[in-house]
Amino acid sequence: MQTRIESLVARCQPGRSLPGDFYSGEEIYRLDVARVWRTGWLFAGHACEIPQPGDFFTIEVDTDPIVVVRGDGGAIHALHNICRHRGSLICTEPSGHVTRLVCPYHQWTYALDGKLLACRGMDEELDKGKFALHRIHTREVEGLIFISLAEEPAPFEPAFKTLAPLLKPQGFHRAKVARAVDYLVEANWKLVWENNRECFHCNVNHPQYIKANFDHYNADDTAPRVREEIAAVVARSEKKWAAAGLAATHKQTGMTLFPDARNHIWFSGNRTPLVDGWVTESMDGRQVAPLMGDYEEPDVGTLRVRTLPNFWNHSSCDHSVSTRLLPAGPQRTAIRVWWLVEESAVEGRDYDLAKLMPFWQLTSEQDWQICERQQRGVNSSAYTPGPYSTYKEYNVASFVQWYLQTLER
Amino acid sequence: MQTRIESLVARCQPGRSLPGDFYSGEEIYRLDVARVWRTGWLFAGHACEIPQPGDFFTIEVDTDPIVVVRGDGGAIHALHNICRHRGSLICTEPSGHVTRLVCPYHQWTYALDGKLLACRGMDEELDKGKFALHRIHTREVEGLIFISLAEEPAPFEPAFKTLAPLLKPQGFHRAKVARAVDYLVEANWKLVWENNRECFHCNVNHPQYIKANFDHYNADDTAPRVREEIAAVVARSEKKWAAAGLAATHKQTGMTLFPDARNHIWFSGNRTPLVDGWVTESMDGRQVAPLMGDYEEPDVGTLRVRTLPNFWNHSSCDHSVSTRLLPAGPQRTAIRVWWLVEESAVEGRDYDLAKLMPFWQLTSEQDWQICERQQRGVNSSAYTPGPYSTYKEYNVASFVQWYLQTLER
Amino acid sequence: MQTRIESLVARCQPGRSLPGDFYSGEEIYRLDVARVWRTGWLFAGHACEIPQPGDFFTIEVDTDPIVVVRGDGGAIHALHNICRHRGSLICTEPSGHVTRLVCPYHQWTYALDGKLLACRGMDEELDKGKFALHRIHTREVEGLIFISLAEEPAPFEPAFKTLAPLLKPQGFHRAKVARAVDYLVEANWKLVWENNRECFHCNVNHPQYIKANFDHYNADDTAPRVREEIAAVVARSEKKWAAAGLAATHKQTGMTLFPDARNHIWFSGNRTPLVDGWVTESMDGRQVAPLMGDYEEPDVGTLRVRTLPNFWNHSSCDHSVSTRLLPAGPQRTAIRVWWLVEESAVEGRDYDLAKLMPFWQLTSEQDWQICERQQRGVNSSAYTPGPYSTYKEYNVASFVQWYLQTLER
Repeated sequence: MQTRIESLVARCQPGRSLPGDFYSGEEIYRLDVARVWRTGWLFAGHACEIPQPGDFFTIEVDTDPIVVVRGDGGAIHALHNICRHRGSLICTEPSGHVTRLVCPYHQWTYALDGKLLACRGMDEELDKGKFALHRIHTREVEGLIFISLAEEPAPFEPAFKTLAPLLKPQGFHRAKVARAVDYLVEANWKLVWENNRECFHCNVNHPQYIKANFDHYNADDTAPRVREEIAAVVARSEKKWAAAGLAATHKQTGMTLFPDARNHIWFSGNRTPLVDGWVTESMDGRQVAPLMGDYEEPDVGTLRVRTLPNFWNHSSCDHSVSTRLLPAGPQRTAIRVWWLVEESAVEGRDYDLAKLMPFWQLTSEQDWQICERQQRGVNSSAYTPGPYSTYKEYNVASFVQWYLQTLER
Repeated sequence: MQTRIESLVARCQPGRSLPGDFYSGEEIYRLDVARVWRTGWLFAGHACEIPQPGDFFTIEVDTDPIVVVRGDGGAIHALHNICRHRGSLICTEPSGHVTRLVCPYHQWTYALDGKLLACRGMDEELDKGKFALHRIHTREVEGLIFISLAEEPAPFEPAFKTLAPLLKPQGFHRAKVARAVDYLVEANWKLVWENNRECFHCNVNHPQYIKANFDHYNADDTAPRVREEIAAVVARSEKKWAAAGLAATHKQTGMTLFPDARNHIWFSGNRTPLVDGWVTESMDGRQVAPLMGDYEEPDVGTLRVRTLPNFWNHSSCDHSVSTRLLPAGPQRTAIRVWWLVEESAVEGRDYDLAKLMPFWQLTSEQDWQICERQQRGVNSSAYTPGPYSTYKEYNVASFVQWYLQTLER
Repeated sequence: MQTRIESLVARCQPGRSLPGDFYSGEEIYRLDVARVWRTGWLFAGHACEIPQPGDFFTIEVDTDPIVVVRGDGGAIHALHNICRHRGSLICTEPSGHVTRLVCPYHQWTYALDGKLLACRGMDEELDKGKFALHRIHTREVEGLIFISLAEEPAPFEPAFKTLAPLLKPQGFHRAKVARAVDYLVEANWKLVWENNRECFHCNVNHPQYIKANFDHYNADDTAPRVREEIAAVVARSEKKWAAAGLAATHKQTGMTLFPDARNHIWFSGNRTPLVDGWVTESMDGRQVAPLMGDYEEPDVGTLRVRTLPNFWNHSSCDHSVSTRLLPAGPQRTAIRVWWLVEESAVEGRDYDLAKLMPFWQLTSEQDWQICERQQRGVNSSAYTPGPYSTYKEYNVASFVQWYLQTLER
């Protein structure tokens, strides 16, 4: 295997997009599932989606059905959602509430932590201790649930230390899901990430996003006027946020460096000012829901968090938008986008989906279309890897580097 | 090939479900088609569906189109439904009537037994004798049509001897199809059989079925009350049936042993009492159509017949339900369920589909859902073969054993 | 590779249809794409579809997206429709008008001949000369556009010399598309050609076509009456056409010999009389649109042109019907059929689609159904190659020979 991987990786040139079969072929997709998706820490969902013991939601990582459930003691468990008897799916709904996990086929019954409690009809000598549901490593950081399918996952602590203080003021624990939308995007998951890792495409493709955000002004095309404007906003924001105890900001124009391939770091977050006049990422920049979490005023800029291989979040003072990728084939990615608001907010009274959703719904769907067009192009026999801009696509190059490192680990 | 098969079979553990790729992979599916489906005796349909010479129906075994047609002399022929000229499908409808088999492409014309009669436009030296339709072995037993794609199939006689006396009183020759329903079930054909080979799942999944039938009361959970109840019914039934000349009964609670892997036997049938108060497998146990065949009174219990790899039938005094499986991909099975009644019965006057169908339509569809859930589970990388209950899943273990024997033959 | 191809080709018998995997398997499909579709001259479309500089249309050969665009100087360019930056599709619509080719992702901007003009945001040392769009060889003959994906395609001149004088009077340069219809036919592209290369199937399958055309009367079934009738029509037509300066006719009954496998010739055309009383291929033989091109009277017979691997055209005095095949999978062919009329003709006034289209729409769709049935048949494990008639299927045998030659080149 190692030799095969080495020969595949050797075909990739630094600073260039990947060869076509990395985006389209079955062999590399299977490798990605094994090396990236079944080893890394995956964002699964929000703790606020399963507030009570017995609340669960299900996800599918490639063909692996998984249930994430809050246990009797309040801890969150992630379990392979397949019965140890004959492999049937156990929880068949996308979400719900149970007291025990009961297989619908022959009623093998498991505790919420996966322990086998009953399997009536089986031979008496069957050792129940050997037939617990296969457990999946789970970690929570400030209301975000991460899982790892690895037997021995990489340590989660570094991510926790970085992300916890950033996430805390947003109050994910006291949030509720206003709406979630599922997409099946006809593009390899790496194309979706490459798209996410640069804003070189924003000016033309994201008319809504660029009104509110600075980061599409990259080093080489920033006029003195823009640079001064940003400096003023950053200075004002820093002062304010320091007083409010809000964590580290991203002060330069341009996107923050992520991933950090040199140190193989897969998580990052930062708080950044919005353009003057925008207090949130809504269509007109005006607040669309009550303040979330610890915020006491709307001017908190925008909090951005991302973790490889499958999560990013953009939060404003009043709402938070999470995006989760799951691989669903060599040229298909299952994507869910959630809009979260303060848990006590009431639809119709405190917020209106028609005002809450369009900013990120449009921006997301613009990206999915871009990725699907790119997929059709890289499927061509005439496709050859092209050069990344060192000014505008440094993060794409880093992502590719991180990805190839991950394959080789 | 043999070595490859041996190494696959060596991965299977007795008394456990099969490894995941036996249920999902392309390689083993191709092997199943070659070793199971193109060698065994397959139920094709009912003789009463093609009463007149020239009547035909078509079926598809994996990608092999087949036509079953009644010949001029009344014999039933099964033929590969593809022209010997350039391979076009000949009969393009699911059923119908023809006088000759004429290819729609260039009108090569075959007798109903497959003999090439005319091929106008071809070179004169073409030897018609060499271009008959490829014939398929066919056997009929009391109105049930079986075919084998093997060049030299296993002898049919043992099956004939066992099944003929059991089937005879049901009168399949004097039956008619009241309705047939086709399903495309997203599950490997072996999952469908494993589901069929135990009633461990019945109590929870088949509320209709268990009201009428005893066999879900398995040895370990039969209370004395139930055992006495069954004994009484069996005793009463046996006496009655002996007087009426009805063949062998199944007297124990629990499912009859099938398949008999020790002797590699693929066919079986038995007559069993229904629960007191049920004279047929209808929703309320009351008769829903005129008596069939030789029956002179409704109290004939239930006749059950099954043949591997693709048939089972449940018959009551007044109607008969046949189920046929055909493989349609590694994770897909084409299933047809037929409801048959006495041939002179008239819909609306003598029977009502709304009363005739629900019992087995519900029970069947409950099983298809179970199988589809199990397929999703065994597709998981975390799936590991689980143990069968020796009390309740002995037949599933036998099926798996029979299957592995068949692969190795 | 060569050895593998030789062993595949060795399995084919002269005068017989191909073994099943030539029509259904992935391996041979990939070989066909490489050896046939990425080497030969492919019909792309009509020059009249892109009359102005900047007009374009797109096509897809297997998974290769291609744009055909008229350049600033009026020349036609075919380019791989994928950006040299990160591979995105550039032109995303089936047809349209542009002044430059601008990638929607990061706005890399190309001239209409593919030259990279601008790539703002990229590193300054990027050598624009190395990042032109990948060009595709293009040739036009009398308004028909051909492309070749080969690096060094076979010479186009012989085709040009043969086809130009035949095509000229039809006036494709002064034509317009009245309507185009797209089909996704579930059949291997070779089955579609084999169907096209004989009229043995016409009598039964094409009731409209045979009323207007002689060529289904093949040598062995031509009665003296028919032979005399044809001779009279040919004699009369030849005289008339010679006076009008119309090019070479096809004088025999039966289809003209094509392809000429002995000389590996992939193009051909001829003018042939229609049946008496038919001046065009319409449902009743009556003129359905104004005269096209150089024609001064309706009695010009029918002009037929075909080029391998993907084009045929049937033209009458008043309209012209082009058919283009593109491979879309082992068992799938994307087919477009165009109806062209004189460019000044106005729908509703000069022609009516309901009269213009049915003759070839019916005939085409009859053929697609034939091909789909044949595909289902050749997918059978029981399919064995059958004999071609030397009287009626000589061109099918030639096609197969040409195809196998092409694989081995």
